[in-house]
Amino acid sequence: MTRIYNFSAGPAVLPLEVLEQAQAELVEFQGSGMSIMEMSHRGKEYEAVHNEAVENIKKLLKLPANYSVLFMTGGATAQFALVPMNLLGSGRIADYINTGAWAAKAAKEAKVIGQVNVIANTEKDIPTRLPELSALRFTPGAAYVHLTSNETIPGTQWRTFPAPAAPLVADMSSDILSRPIDVAQFGLIYAGAQKNLGPAGVTVVIIRNDLAECVNEQTPNIFRYKTHLEENSLHNTPPCYIIYMLALCPRWLLKQGGVEAIARINRAKAARLYAAIDASGFYKGTATLDCRSDMNVTFRLPTEALEELFVKEAAAQQLKGLKGHRSVGGIRASIYNAFPLAGVEALIAFMKDFAKRNG
Amino acid sequence: MTRIYNFSAGPAVLPLEVLEQAQAELVEFQGSGMSIMEMSHRGKEYEAVHNEAVENIKKLLKLPANYSVLFMTGGATAQFALVPMNLLGSGRIADYINTGAWAAKAAKEAKVIGQVNVIANTEKDIPTRLPELSALRFTPGAAYVHLTSNETIPGTQWRTFPAPAAPLVADMSSDILSRPIDVAQFGLIYAGAQKNLGPAGVTVVIIRNDLAECVNEQTPNIFRYKTHLEENSLHNTPPCYIIYMLALCPRWLLKQGGVEAIARINRAKAARLYAAIDASGFYKGTATLDCRSDMNVTFRLPTEALEELFVKEAAAQQLKGLKGHRSVGGIRASIYNAFPLAGVEALIAFMKDFAKRNG
Repeated sequence: MTRIYNFSAGPAVLPLEVLEQAQAELVEFQGSGMSIMEMSHRGKEYEAVHNEAVENIKKLLKLPANYSVLFMTGGATAQFALVPMNLLGSGRIADYINTGAWAAKAAKEAKVIGQVNVIANTEKDIPTRLPELSALRFTPGAAYVHLTSNETIPGTQWRTFPAPAAPLVADMSSDILSRPIDVAQFGLIYAGAQKNLGPAGVTVVIIRNDLAECVNEQTPNIFRYKTHLEENSLHNTPPCYIIYMLALCPRWLLKQGGVEAIARINRAKAARLYAAIDASGFYKGTATLDCRSDMNVTFRLPTEALEELFVKEAAAQQLKGLKGHRSVGGIRASIYNAFPLAGVEALIAFMKDFAKRNG
Repeated sequence: MTRIYNFSAGPAVLPLEVLEQAQAELVEFQGSGMSIMEMSHRGKEYEAVHNEAVENIKKLLKLPANYSVLFMTGGATAQFALVPMNLLGSGRIADYINTGAWAAKAAKEAKVIGQVNVIANTEKDIPTRLPELSALRFTPGAAYVHLTSNETIPGTQWRTFPAPAAPLVADMSSDILSRPIDVAQFGLIYAGAQKNLGPAGVTVVIIRNDLAECVNEQTPNIFRYKTHLEENSLHNTPPCYIIYMLALCPRWLLKQGGVEAIARINRAKAARLYAAIDASGFYKGTATLDCRSDMNVTFRLPTEALEELFVKEAAAQQLKGLKGHRSVGGIRASIYNAFPLAGVEALIAFMKDFAKRNG
């Protein structure tokens, strides 16, 4: 097998050694005579896997004692609805910071549930950017303030988070566990697994326990954070196999040295790629310097025809998934935790050659 | 590896050849240089898998043209809320038939959303049973009538379905694709995958297209059937790997000859087991004869101490997962599509021996 370099924005590359372990034990899990996919979610074997997934994430995030890790489904998109269904009481307002397509979707869904105040909007700005912290005007008494920590389409990432009086809620789907964060700054964090945590099919929710007590009586039990917190995410059958992968990937991350160690690598990967863009005189980064993402490096070429050729030639050299999101075009290199430095170097070498031939 | 006989009620046994194929292509999918877990859900490779899963289910169910197959998440438990969130308009009533724990949970969650009329209740009846069709009195103008086609805990299964004027909604989590049904009798069918369809982590919804048009404006977009129908269940990132398994398992079922063929095998497996129970003078079936399930065969021994010993000795002979549900006790042998006839024969042989030694 020739393993390609997979720059996909998500579902995204997974650590090869995790895939190999999953393969080795797919038909029979640890001498049990069956696959982990076939096991009762109430049995001892699965329970150990489930609890390891929780514990690994707690360790990696240095989770304060008054927070819990929940496993839910439906991705970040379901959380766009579940956050206001749980936290936005009738007559209250939630603040949303619109920094791009994902933040906008979160706000749009919240408006179906209740009152939303979009307190900053950089969605359409070119070059792409985030609002200044000092310019944010929070609604007094807001139920919560929502932001998207990393926008995969424009390639922007918050470096310093705002500190509103209301609980801060963050969609961290595309950068959770990629850099140290202080969980205590947040009331709730959610993340679809398919970028930095594992395969698609589970959503990790980090919640300050007191917020799970905000129960709206009209919210069905299955959609209450309280239900999942009280039952360790085993209220009903969870996506067991995906949670098994969610035990393995963070286990791999712990072996790499944890979040601090991977953050240094992520920083180095992104810095090299941005340096190559800036030094080229050919490629042009799309985000303002201070808002550039370490996860999704976005840039343009002089023409759309050249961009198309770039994606095609790169793919022929086993550099795949570089096409920018269909809504904005351009090039996007997604380089999450499991993406190897060697792949970034291969991309840079290709970029230099391509620029020389087409510059 | 010694493969055990897994009588688990769900997640449950999967076809060995499916597990072996999944294992073979886990690290690299069909020469692509990556795992199917790592692929974009918008790419050609995944799209083909996704559409095969839909098509296989359509073929197996002989789906009429005005019905669609949706892939959602959260299991049947999420559907307990989503059905009324979509179909139970304000001021209307939904009829629920309570035949056991699962039907009761569906009704309980629906009551959070709107008005529910429990039109029949056999939940607490011993021996366990279903209501007589002729005794059902539907609410005139009901939004829908809900039933659970197979109750895994008491081990009861509908043989003939009622034909109300309102759309019939069925939770078929534990017997979908195990026997032929006439889909046109139903407005909506839902099923968590983890018994007859694949691993846990995806919910299959079969919906008559016009019912997806009933949109309650207060239901978030992600929770509307309409959203998933219009976008072929790709509104957001689906649980791709589980859907891949959901392509493979129904592909296996088609190779076995489809639903009619597996139904004959299922009938034969259950009939042998029930015959062994009835002939024993030692074991006693818990469901009335006409309501016995082909999927979950439930029975009692003369004492709870003997039941405990039975489960323990069976496990030592690689017959696992036989303990009845914690709420009712007794013995439960779940024998879904992928459970082999040889396992039923092994259980019968063990039962005879056990009865001889303890009778």
